[in-house]
Amino acid sequence: MEIGTIASEEVSARIGRLQARMLEAGIDAFLVTQHVDLYYFTGSMQAGYAFVPAAGEPVFYVRRSLERARRESAIAVTALTSLRGFRAQLASDHPAVFGGGSGTVSAVNIATEMDVLPATTYARLAEAVSGGVAGTALTDGSSLVRGMRTIKSPWEVGRIEAAAQVVAEALEASLPVLKEGVSELELMARLEYEMRIRGHIGLMRTRSYNMEIMTGMLGSGAAAAVPSAFDGPAGGLGLGPAAPQSTSRRTIRRDEPILIDIGCCIDGYVIDQTRTAVIGSLANDLADAYAHSERIVRHAERLMRPGTACDAIYAASLKDAAHAGLADHFMGFGSDQVKFLGHGIGLEVDEWPVLARGFGNPLEPGMVLAVEPKFTFPGRGVVGIENSYLITDDGCRALTKSPEGLIVL
Amino acid sequence: MEIGTIASEEVSARIGRLQARMLEAGIDAFLVTQHVDLYYFTGSMQAGYAFVPAAGEPVFYVRRSLERARRESAIAVTALTSLRGFRAQLASDHPAVFGGGSGTVSAVNIATEMDVLPATTYARLAEAVSGGVAGTALTDGSSLVRGMRTIKSPWEVGRIEAAAQVVAEALEASLPVLKEGVSELELMARLEYEMRIRGHIGLMRTRSYNMEIMTGMLGSGAAAAVPSAFDGPAGGLGLGPAAPQSTSRRTIRRDEPILIDIGCCIDGYVIDQTRTAVIGSLANDLADAYAHSERIVRHAERLMRPGTACDAIYAASLKDAAHAGLADHFMGFGSDQVKFLGHGIGLEVDEWPVLARGFGNPLEPGMVLAVEPKFTFPGRGVVGIENSYLITDDGCRALTKSPEGLIVL
Repeated sequence: MEIGTIASEEVSARIGRLQARMLEAGIDAFLVTQHVDLYYFTGSMQAGYAFVPAAGEPVFYVRRSLERARRESAIAVTALTSLRGFRAQLASDHPAVFGGGSGTVSAVNIATEMDVLPATTYARLAEAVSGGVAGTALTDGSSLVRGMRTIKSPWEVGRIEAAAQVVAEALEASLPVLKEGVSELELMARLEYEMRIRGHIGLMRTRSYNMEIMTGMLGSGAAAAVPSAFDGPAGGLGLGPAAPQSTSRRTIRRDEPILIDIGCCIDGYVIDQTRTAVIGSLANDLADAYAHSERIVRHAERLMRPGTACDAIYAASLKDAAHAGLADHFMGFGSDQVKFLGHGIGLEVDEWPVLARGFGNPLEPGMVLAVEPKFTFPGRGVVGIENSYLITDDGCRALTKSPEGLIVL
Repeated sequence: MEIGTIASEEVSARIGRLQARMLEAGIDAFLVTQHVDLYYFTGSMQAGYAFVPAAGEPVFYVRRSLERARRESAIAVTALTSLRGFRAQLASDHPAVFGGGSGTVSAVNIATEMDVLPATTYARLAEAVSGGVAGTALTDGSSLVRGMRTIKSPWEVGRIEAAAQVVAEALEASLPVLKEGVSELELMARLEYEMRIRGHIGLMRTRSYNMEIMTGMLGSGAAAAVPSAFDGPAGGLGLGPAAPQSTSRRTIRRDEPILIDIGCCIDGYVIDQTRTAVIGSLANDLADAYAHSERIVRHAERLMRPGTACDAIYAASLKDAAHAGLADHFMGFGSDQVKFLGHGIGLEVDEWPVLARGFGNPLEPGMVLAVEPKFTFPGRGVVGIENSYLITDDGCRALTKSPEGLIVL
């Protein structure tokens, strides 16, 4: 079986869970449109739409490549002839949803991923699935999919661990490049090369509009502490106004913190980790802040188990930071602070759940989270650590493979 | 001035052109939301919305980073306090659009980029700008923006040429790696490294839903000819079902075509070029097909001048391919053929115009196009060439820097 091929039992289980959630939510069918969700529910990312009725067999309607979809997909594949004929095709394949050929159709509620589907594509699809027949609504089911994707199967956890192994090896292989006078970009290019030859697909997929992450963020000294549009604790200076985050052309110097917040995507699954390095030594307050970031991770590890509310872990980290006298520096500085400690990872890097205020939902076994306490010192740099964890039946297990501790060169 | 900083006169000219088009189209204001369009109309990609009235001063409403937006933006910057208060903020800043404080508001037509804006974000924004007041519509203005972005300024052409230079240097620096037994992925990783250290931001931005291009496609022999979801003449085998296009782990062999279709993004602007290489020699029919691809490019060069209809150039290439007896192999094979010869490039890789049937619009000075005739031989490989061109006042000028001709190693 090809690497990255999802076993058909795995797909069946996912479809079953989706159907159970749809019945609960009063949804008659799900129209899957996003390439990542298509991979999740069919095993294939070919271009088309997967139609999953609340009961009965799902079908992947494929525009191209049909040949490749047939080889990859764990659900039935058929050619999508035209968007104009899509309603008729659906009604004929799924009579239970559309009321059969009787012509009498009651209200049909079809859900889709309105959080990522562009507005005009949504409008076009809504028209196509209704086929001009009143009573068919295309509604938002994105929270349903994002919710069920929080729980990873053992196979998915294995993919995330494979990605963690690649990042660990790439970091180790690249550290010899990290010398005084090398630029952030040179070091990042080497890290990316080492991840790429090990199978990184080239970017970490994100769900959020306008968000781009190829391999994370590498920032040194003051450049790491520059605020940015990026909704994270350290955006970075970037390569200019057209790439205003992550790595810059700045030269790395002695005795300043170097934040290496990187990840990769292997077989579709991402890992996200941060280590802090220094050539020489850190000033005492920065070294202390780094030590505090490890303490916050230790505290989070003790709290992370099924039943703990996500916001309780965030609240604990705020308290820890305040206790250390570092409240103003925690997760960004001043008005640029971000309001979370960690986030789900999986097929995308901005998955649920989020360790943040307002997320009162409890952790569940199978969730995978990146926990990333960081402290920002404007003009001086960012220090911190980030590990990813699987929530187990009675606690959590680290998936990150790189050794902890400040990297001193 | 920092690299990638757009001169304020350049931004003013763009705003002026947008306003002229809005007046023509009966649009009262444009709400710019996409990061690429924000960069185009403000010079900054910070998170927020730019509001451009059909007459009067535009304002960039910024969520984060405000400090950075103030430094980067060529238009006025103000803090976006909350989406709930956005209507009141807009009405106060732009009384000419919203009917002043009189309370009597006539119909207001605000356009936005509905081709990329996710459906739920669109709905939230539509509610925010209407503020519950009847008569305010948020409509699709994406074709207006895509249309005006087809015409590049001399500064933009300079950015694209800088990207072309990087690709040419990276290709030259990487060819020593191309030996029998090396994998596609190893060669691609090296090409990407060479582009990255020269300033490639790490991906080539695309406008289409579900489309991902980091650095293009490198495919050898049969792997290049595998059909894919990608709407291009050669998708490639990829790394597995979760990355089912471009580079694979396949080992490159003697006497087979190696398609190197790569690009990069420098200061926000992309270049796109293809060269074909071989270790040893190509079979006669493949070598002939490659020669035909260069002939099609020569023919396109003669046709490309202001006034020529885009579809006429595509039609000419179809005729050339048929005349060579290669109609079935042109731009993909059989049912997987794509129906275009070239496409606009600029801030995104899938820009307008498209050299395809149905695109009867004439070329205009300032347009930049990638022209990519390719021939696919299932089980054997893909051969072809791709150059990018600027349409000048009386013809066209190649922006691609790499020498032409089959690369024989």
